[in-house]
Amino acid sequence: MELYLVIAIFVGSLLALAFALIMAKRVLSFDEGTDRMKKISASIRAGANAYLKRQYTIVAIFFAVMFVILGVMAIFGLLTPFVPFAFITGGFFSGLSGFIGMKIATAANARTANACRTGLNKGLRVAFSAGSVMGFTVVGLGLLDISIWFTLLKFVFNQDAAEITSAMLTFGMGASSMALFARVGGGIFTKAADVGADLVGKVEAGIPEDDPRNPAVIADNVGDNVGDVAGMGADLYESYVGSVISCSALGVAAFNSQGMGFQAMAIPMIMAALGILCSIIGTFFVRTGEKTEQKLLLKALSRGTNLSAILIAIAAFPLIWFILGAENWKLYFAVIAGLIAGVLIGKATEYFTSDTYKPTKNLAAKSETGSATIIIGGLGLGMLSTAIPIIIVGIAVLVSFFVSGGTIEAPQMGLYGIALAAVGMLSTLGITLATDAYGPVADNAGGIAEMSGLEPEVRERTDALDSLGNTTAATGKGFAIGSAALTALALIASYIDKIKGMVDGIDYMSFSVMNPKVLIGLFIGACLPFVFAALTMDAVGRAAQSVVIEVRRQFKSIKGLMQGKADPDYAKCVDMCSRSSLKEMILPTVIAIAVPVVVGLVLSYYGVVGMLAGATASGFLMAIFMSNSGGAWDNAKKYIEAGNHGGKGSDQHKAAVVGDTVGDPFKDTSGPSINILIKLLSMVSIVFAALVVFVSQYIPF
Amino acid sequence: MELYLVIAIFVGSLLALAFALIMAKRVLSFDEGTDRMKKISASIRAGANAYLKRQYTIVAIFFAVMFVILGVMAIFGLLTPFVPFAFITGGFFSGLSGFIGMKIATAANARTANACRTGLNKGLRVAFSAGSVMGFTVVGLGLLDISIWFTLLKFVFNQDAAEITSAMLTFGMGASSMALFARVGGGIFTKAADVGADLVGKVEAGIPEDDPRNPAVIADNVGDNVGDVAGMGADLYESYVGSVISCSALGVAAFNSQGMGFQAMAIPMIMAALGILCSIIGTFFVRTGEKTEQKLLLKALSRGTNLSAILIAIAAFPLIWFILGAENWKLYFAVIAGLIAGVLIGKATEYFTSDTYKPTKNLAAKSETGSATIIIGGLGLGMLSTAIPIIIVGIAVLVSFFVSGGTIEAPQMGLYGIALAAVGMLSTLGITLATDAYGPVADNAGGIAEMSGLEPEVRERTDALDSLGNTTAATGKGFAIGSAALTALALIASYIDKIKGMVDGIDYMSFSVMNPKVLIGLFIGACLPFVFAALTMDAVGRAAQSVVIEVRRQFKSIKGLMQGKADPDYAKCVDMCSRSSLKEMILPTVIAIAVPVVVGLVLSYYGVVGMLAGATASGFLMAIFMSNSGGAWDNAKKYIEAGNHGGKGSDQHKAAVVGDTVGDPFKDTSGPSINILIKLLSMVSIVFAALVVFVSQYIPF
Repeated sequence: MELYLVIAIFVGSLLALAFALIMAKRVLSFDEGTDRMKKISASIRAGANAYLKRQYTIVAIFFAVMFVILGVMAIFGLLTPFVPFAFITGGFFSGLSGFIGMKIATAANARTANACRTGLNKGLRVAFSAGSVMGFTVVGLGLLDISIWFTLLKFVFNQDAAEITSAMLTFGMGASSMALFARVGGGIFTKAADVGADLVGKVEAGIPEDDPRNPAVIADNVGDNVGDVAGMGADLYESYVGSVISCSALGVAAFNSQGMGFQAMAIPMIMAALGILCSIIGTFFVRTGEKTEQKLLLKALSRGTNLSAILIAIAAFPLIWFILGAENWKLYFAVIAGLIAGVLIGKATEYFTSDTYKPTKNLAAKSETGSATIIIGGLGLGMLSTAIPIIIVGIAVLVSFFVSGGTIEAPQMGLYGIALAAVGMLSTLGITLATDAYGPVADNAGGIAEMSGLEPEVRERTDALDSLGNTTAATGKGFAIGSAALTALALIASYIDKIKGMVDGIDYMSFSVMNPKVLIGLFIGACLPFVFAALTMDAVGRAAQSVVIEVRRQFKSIKGLMQGKADPDYAKCVDMCSRSSLKEMILPTVIAIAVPVVVGLVLSYYGVVGMLAGATASGFLMAIFMSNSGGAWDNAKKYIEAGNHGGKGSDQHKAAVVGDTVGDPFKDTSGPSINILIKLLSMVSIVFAALVVFVSQYIPF
Repeated sequence: MELYLVIAIFVGSLLALAFALIMAKRVLSFDEGTDRMKKISASIRAGANAYLKRQYTIVAIFFAVMFVILGVMAIFGLLTPFVPFAFITGGFFSGLSGFIGMKIATAANARTANACRTGLNKGLRVAFSAGSVMGFTVVGLGLLDISIWFTLLKFVFNQDAAEITSAMLTFGMGASSMALFARVGGGIFTKAADVGADLVGKVEAGIPEDDPRNPAVIADNVGDNVGDVAGMGADLYESYVGSVISCSALGVAAFNSQGMGFQAMAIPMIMAALGILCSIIGTFFVRTGEKTEQKLLLKALSRGTNLSAILIAIAAFPLIWFILGAENWKLYFAVIAGLIAGVLIGKATEYFTSDTYKPTKNLAAKSETGSATIIIGGLGLGMLSTAIPIIIVGIAVLVSFFVSGGTIEAPQMGLYGIALAAVGMLSTLGITLATDAYGPVADNAGGIAEMSGLEPEVRERTDALDSLGNTTAATGKGFAIGSAALTALALIASYIDKIKGMVDGIDYMSFSVMNPKVLIGLFIGACLPFVFAALTMDAVGRAAQSVVIEVRRQFKSIKGLMQGKADPDYAKCVDMCSRSSLKEMILPTVIAIAVPVVVGLVLSYYGVVGMLAGATASGFLMAIFMSNSGGAWDNAKKYIEAGNHGGKGSDQHKAAVVGDTVGDPFKDTSGPSINILIKLLSMVSIVFAALVVFVSQYIPF
């Protein structure tokens, strides 16, 4: 049976990659449009390529250093020799996911703009196909990495189930590290450019968004590709892989004693493979008419995602029944709990951030009394919006734990259930990511349409697609955050599993919050997302400030620029964004890797577990808070631009732009990075567990 | 011995009250100045009185309802019959502290302004004397309440130590409820008025702060008294009492088996009494020359507070040695750890919020690129500033726990040590509160000086005092937050003690974060400060918006107002602030009381402990974040007004005003309320513990 299962996973992964290839060919079959469009698209492409090249160079140095550290630890017997290699491959595939996503997105932007000259449906098809390339590349490469390592460890090195999952968790750490670099670096780039372009262009000079006279406009478009596309690709690769392998690890812990460790380990992998199939089917149902109404467009996309979710909900049942046996069929409900929780968190996010609902409408109304009130309002909205997702995740955890047969005395099955819920949530990532990743493509297409001076109706169509992209992005973020929380919990359980194996007398229930080490760990962990958000926001602020100064300089010193007679120096802005974002991405990532090790060395594994729990709770809250505040400000601004509360150019609009600008690093830099942070912390803890246990013997208190 | 100890506590409390009386007489012996000053002061007083009367009426209804609920629970044997009465007295004394503070502050404002006409030192003496009235009233009433109940329970009803502390924790709940109403209501009032006055007056109409033409200017001054004075008084009463009684309760738990429960219970009370003595001595050392330099003024105040701290550090040693015996002398280090931690957190707060240091200077520089960057910068600064206090508190917890002889197997002594650290931190509250409470008096004095058209050097002097007040307020907030965190931890331990007594097999180490109920509780608890901050900020936003509209209306409709020929309708603004703040204060408080009960009923005591730990961690972070962001924005604005980055009236200044406006609810409404919230949650949990245990038998999972 084992071989069949492995083949099934391989097939799933290759299916995804093949589908991505077909979609990529489809995208490339479209025309790029006028010469001007081609030229602009080429400069965006060049900028994005140049940035990624520099980013990967820096990241490569980091990986080399980590490889040596892990290698030394392996030599001293604190790690298995597979770990350093697994670490590298995780990072490699995560980076590759982002790279391919960026490649196709920069190829698709002009093509989408050009397709929108013919019609809305054609535009949607190009953009969505590009999104699909990204979605299916991520899941395909994720499963490929899993299956290669699995095959290697199982059939070449003859490792047992526990050893396999243990090594596989390490490539999770590689993927997470890469993802954090990509998200933070890309996030800083995109927002520095965006904020810089907005502050001087829109607010000071009073020229419209994407106006070719704005020197930061190309940097802004490059940013969409390296942040929202390449960053997101690496990020979701990490989420996907993380949820599958942490679930596999817990499956082994729960079922090994019954001799079914291998089956339990395979369940999340096969569910992922099935999810790919369901996602592919779903993509065929995404199409729209020619009306730019949001509701119709949203319906077009959700038809696809909903269908995929229903299919996987059906397919999961026989999967669990046949592989784990009829006596464990209740684990199915854990999968369903995860799926439902994902959908509900998405809906809650939509409610708080879409301008069709009250919260964002009320927020827009706060622009009437100036920027201070809209800022206060947006912060309040984001903080308040944490309540519902917390309750949803709480119920999902409770249901998936107890339904799976977990008890406080013997929680293994319950913890496996929680992990299965996370896998359930992410199983249709192929299509949900496609609906998410098409957003930046549409955004870029709009920019190109504006800069190339295409007909107004083209811009109208790209705007409709872009605006829809904001909603799907919000929903996607909800999914990403929800799954991150569940995966992080699963990883904490995996960490304790690891410690259990090394220290006598430790079990899941040894980590009381009244143990001062756990408690202090909890405090420190809860603090990390705050510090992390601060560092990333400050970085955006600093980077943006330098862009602002440069843009002001160009406006002043380049004669004829405002009259459209001279071209600005786009490349200078791109270069500045690159340099500052690469410089700024290092510290946050180093902190994320160093803190768990330091906490472990001082407060032992007790402190680590506390830290992980604290970081998961507060990280979940901060991520939702920041994403939703940012999303709501963005849409409040768009709502005003649509003619409400004075419309474009009014004082209210200016106030809303301030809100949007504050929201930019919130939703696109800090918020999403925190998702990665909470998982990376656990993975680092797992990798350094043996060292911590070793040192903790010598701590006097 | 018991009687002597009780007498000592009584004496301490009466000493404080007598000193407060003397100080009050001193304040009243000064002259109120010109007729115009008297008139303005009278309208502020009238507004504050009217507001508090309405507030207490509403609160009385709440207390009546709670009294009935607690009474019914007592009848069903879920509480002792003392509880409802203790609840009422806690609320009464807390409210009384605020009331007296407000009375003296509104009496002292014109007197301070008038004294500043003679000289700076005289002004400082009046303002500081008024602050002292408040400081010593709070500690005097706090100890009085404690000693009355103690005497009653011990000598009249013959209760044992455990029963005494159990009943006394209930009046903590009363005090906390009252404090929350006062802080939230007063905080909304003051900031609605402040934001309203600033947004229209300063930003739109371009008239200076405290200009008599601004219709919201009296409301703004009333707000200082009902928010920053009455609210703070009730708040710190609650902190003080909470830390003492939770420490007493843990003392009983730790020492009862050795037959020294009574002594351990008395330690925090006597330390509080000694602290009063040390604080009184300290006040005699507060005096200054005639230079308005911040450093000299700050030195004048810190001479007093430092001396008091040193005295109590010395006095605590014999206290512990003689009462608890030489074998327990190491508990002394817990007290010292608390004292040092308090000072260090205060310093850290000062570093992040004072414009003499880099963070606030850098923040001010962000005004160069507009309001969005200064907002992002301030949020980042606040989030980043959480790291150092977290580490300080972490070390304080670790030291006080292990030094006191706590171990993971037998943590009682360690938990008592943590509680002692909190008492150490707050023991000199008399004087630290005096240095804190004098700020709003100076602020009001400045307002009166401006409105009465006094000579510019008077305003200069009141400004110097006010600005110093901002720094001491920041330090005071650091203390309040640090002690709140430690007290909250002590209260969680008290809660578990209570549960231990009712449920077999439960001990301090039964609350692992991997227990899904604890975990979900942790998530919910961590979410509460976010929700709470959102509700209070939204309330300020809503209330402010109504003030803005009213002020705009008056500017438009009252002819000759801008020319200074007609008076605005001050009373209308006061009334609007009152009404909206009273309406808005109810929901947050009800949530704070309802959530612990609901969590307990659904997730049992496991969920409650998780919730309390989560709320303490995230509440601590949110409180620091919000206080420090707010303080830094405020001082960045002042720094610009002092002539940097373009000075008053420049675009940079306008950007900084936006920051300050956002910071207002942060630092004066939401932030301080969260301090109360985290303790109130534990107190409510303790009171409802029996109900939760009873119901939890019937929960199926």
